[in-house]
Amino acid sequence: MTSALTLYYAPGTCAQAVRIALHEAGAEHRLVRLDFPAGQQRSPEYLAINPKGRVPALVTEEGTLTETPALLAYVAQRFPQARLAPTDAHGFARMQEFHSYLASTVHVAHAHRPRAVRWADEPEAIAAMQRKVPQNMTECFEMIEHHALGDGPWVMGDQYTVADGYLFTVAGWLAGDGVDIARFPKVHAHSQRVAARPTVQQALA
Amino acid sequence: MTSALTLYYAPGTCAQAVRIALHEAGAEHRLVRLDFPAGQQRSPEYLAINPKGRVPALVTEEGTLTETPALLAYVAQRFPQARLAPTDAHGFARMQEFHSYLASTVHVAHAHRPRAVRWADEPEAIAAMQRKVPQNMTECFEMIEHHALGDGPWVMGDQYTVADGYLFTVAGWLAGDGVDIARFPKVHAHSQRVAARPTVQQALA
Repeated sequence: MTSALTLYYAPGTCAQAVRIALHEAGAEHRLVRLDFPAGQQRSPEYLAINPKGRVPALVTEEGTLTETPALLAYVAQRFPQARLAPTDAHGFARMQEFHSYLASTVHVAHAHRPRAVRWADEPEAIAAMQRKVPQNMTECFEMIEHHALGDGPWVMGDQYTVADGYLFTVAGWLAGDGVDIARFPKVHAHSQRVAARPTVQQALA
Repeated sequence: MTSALTLYYAPGTCAQAVRIALHEAGAEHRLVRLDFPAGQQRSPEYLAINPKGRVPALVTEEGTLTETPALLAYVAQRFPQARLAPTDAHGFARMQEFHSYLASTVHVAHAHRPRAVRWADEPEAIAAMQRKVPQNMTECFEMIEHHALGDGPWVMGDQYTVADGYLFTVAGWLAGDGVDIARFPKVHAHSQRVAARPTVQQALA
């Protein structure tokens, strides 16, 4: 069976948001799992696909695309019948704003625990960054709880969008970061709502 | 004179990319400059506009939008006659990929110098992060030089887009980060090309 789309991913990463989006879109696709502990993302074969050595990477007929916010908007726009993004300019921008906050602030706050070595070499500095992760993740999710999420049920309101699988993915990192998701009732209820979707369960199977 | 768009910005920040985009779009807009050294971004008045306490923030008729990648795509889509973004799904996704890399990897690498306090409390850890900034910015710009920029003259090829003002803005931080832009000939030439545009000169005036 051939497919026009191939997603490179690794468990526990933000690539999960793209897996969910592809399932929600009903998009035929092939999955390639990288073995991160074995360093497969740094293999010459993978660097030829994505020189950044990260996931997700989505191979399309027109070339490879990377970066979660770009891939989520691409999936929504390529499969418009799935209605996975607002179509008006302001609504689309609000979704993009949410994606960008998750990517450049929340994901970064989280990454200072598992990947603090990116930003300093000294073990004491790495430990100092890791100690601050629970505080930073708490502040990020207070922002999401009080300013990004409205009355729901979904991030963008009535309409389920690719933003929901992304929030669900990033919220899934809270426990490992030492933060109890129950501190954020809207986020908590949202994650349970996303987890209950059959398409999401298929995507994670 | 009234305007439908108001951009909150501060000098030296990524809000410059949005200023440039608004000028390139020919968009009537009002500018409000925040005094960052005086902490104006943390004033109750500004937090009511953008609870994140950061710039850029763009006030529109339909509400306030934040996050540079979201604002750049919004300006391009709101003023389509200015042709500031590819209109095909794959081209638009490639532009978004570039924006997302600048926001969540390059801007973050830079921020560990002026704003390292976000990620650790101890002065030694902050100094350790700051020491690594030149190395990380160099790696980011090697990636841009060798994998993101093609034959030009612009980021997306023949067509000038909002991505060009964004790269120009972030590349403008290299000197302060202790990295010589001349190490990256394509980036260097690109920055000179952007700086020579009359619209850019107006935007920065």
